[in-house]
Amino acid sequence: MHLFYQSEIIAGEATQHLTEDDSRHAVKTLRLRAGDAITVTDGHGNQYAAVIHETDLRRCAFRIKAVHTTLPRPFSIRICVAPTKNLDRIEWFVEKAVEVGIERISFFFGQHSERRVLKLERIEKIAISAMKQSLQSFLPKLDDAVPFGEMLKTIGDGQRFIAHLPPDRPPVNLAKRATEAGQYVVLIGPEGDFADTEIQQALVAGFQVVTLGPNRLRTETAALTACQVLNFINQ
Amino acid sequence: MHLFYQSEIIAGEATQHLTEDDSRHAVKTLRLRAGDAITVTDGHGNQYAAVIHETDLRRCAFRIKAVHTTLPRPFSIRICVAPTKNLDRIEWFVEKAVEVGIERISFFFGQHSERRVLKLERIEKIAISAMKQSLQSFLPKLDDAVPFGEMLKTIGDGQRFIAHLPPDRPPVNLAKRATEAGQYVVLIGPEGDFADTEIQQALVAGFQVVTLGPNRLRTETAALTACQVLNFINQ
Repeated sequence: MHLFYQSEIIAGEATQHLTEDDSRHAVKTLRLRAGDAITVTDGHGNQYAAVIHETDLRRCAFRIKAVHTTLPRPFSIRICVAPTKNLDRIEWFVEKAVEVGIERISFFFGQHSERRVLKLERIEKIAISAMKQSLQSFLPKLDDAVPFGEMLKTIGDGQRFIAHLPPDRPPVNLAKRATEAGQYVVLIGPEGDFADTEIQQALVAGFQVVTLGPNRLRTETAALTACQVLNFINQ
Repeated sequence: MHLFYQSEIIAGEATQHLTEDDSRHAVKTLRLRAGDAITVTDGHGNQYAAVIHETDLRRCAFRIKAVHTTLPRPFSIRICVAPTKNLDRIEWFVEKAVEVGIERISFFFGQHSERRVLKLERIEKIAISAMKQSLQSFLPKLDDAVPFGEMLKTIGDGQRFIAHLPPDRPPVNLAKRATEAGQYVVLIGPEGDFADTEIQQALVAGFQVVTLGPNRLRTETAALTACQVLNFINQ
């Protein structure tokens, strides 16, 4: 199955167009021709069974034959994570989290963050590619990196967790604290961990301190593990 | 804490030596000096509190002051996986699986495997590095890649699973099939999936067919997800 992504499907329009990237991929790489069947997702839960109408390297036209709509999951996972110093690691997290299932990824810069710049465009491409690869029809929301305090203001209702190993209290695992069918938010700190003031801010905002297992995990491993735990408790 | 790895700790010997890699790291990168405290693990559950005795770029000497022994976990996870075409992907799996906890990784070549060569030396280095990074004292066993049938002969007692989406049966998730405190073996196929004859061989050998969630996962994501599921049901 060839799955393409076009976020702007125009209702009622007979002929639609693939994006420039996907047009090139369809026509040049896959050598699709007029009449060939494709599947297009809008990233909002709809998958369209379609056929290529007119090939064009930049604006390949297709016509929709049927639509299959998936409802959002009865739970949602939002991971707020500090980008890693090494970009590969955070990109890897995005790819894997999208594959296993996530609703939203928010980036933030903490006081101990070494990385202070993150280009969302590349991250978006990775997320789209992972959505296609895993045959899903929802593209997670991605939020540009902002300072920790600003990010905290964007947190809505739901079960709030911060991954941290407090020196003075016995750790409680996320798997024991989170309950089914929740709207989860988990905060994952940078390589240098959260600053004490950040942990205080999170506690004031109603976040519960949790651990993600007995081992010390890298930032990107912790972020993916949180995502996996929340998927599992909802299976 | 500076954690080093020396699999050959000699009982009763007053002075021990770091490996060549670790000697260079200790002396050149970390600039440790005689009298500095280090921690050394043998990868078999022992962590030694030690001090540098004599610095040497190739054979740095240390003396053990105390030993802390960890018992093996009450369950064990063995993942048998076909190496991915792109080596980065399988190396990434090894790093992450060691971080979250795994006892054994066995590689095999399936009928549909594109990759037919795997150098275990590099994989071993990644496993050692991940063990140190996550402050563990057990190094998982790594098995050289062999053909699927040969690998099957090395499977001992335990709960046996093969990750596969059968076209004719409703899928059962690994999380529902595996029970606590088991000796688990999970087979993960190559990018081209298992051949039908391989699935038959596995069924005859008592493997149960399971899925790892609703999405289509890449080989390395499936392998890590299986490892995560089995860790979670034992937490």
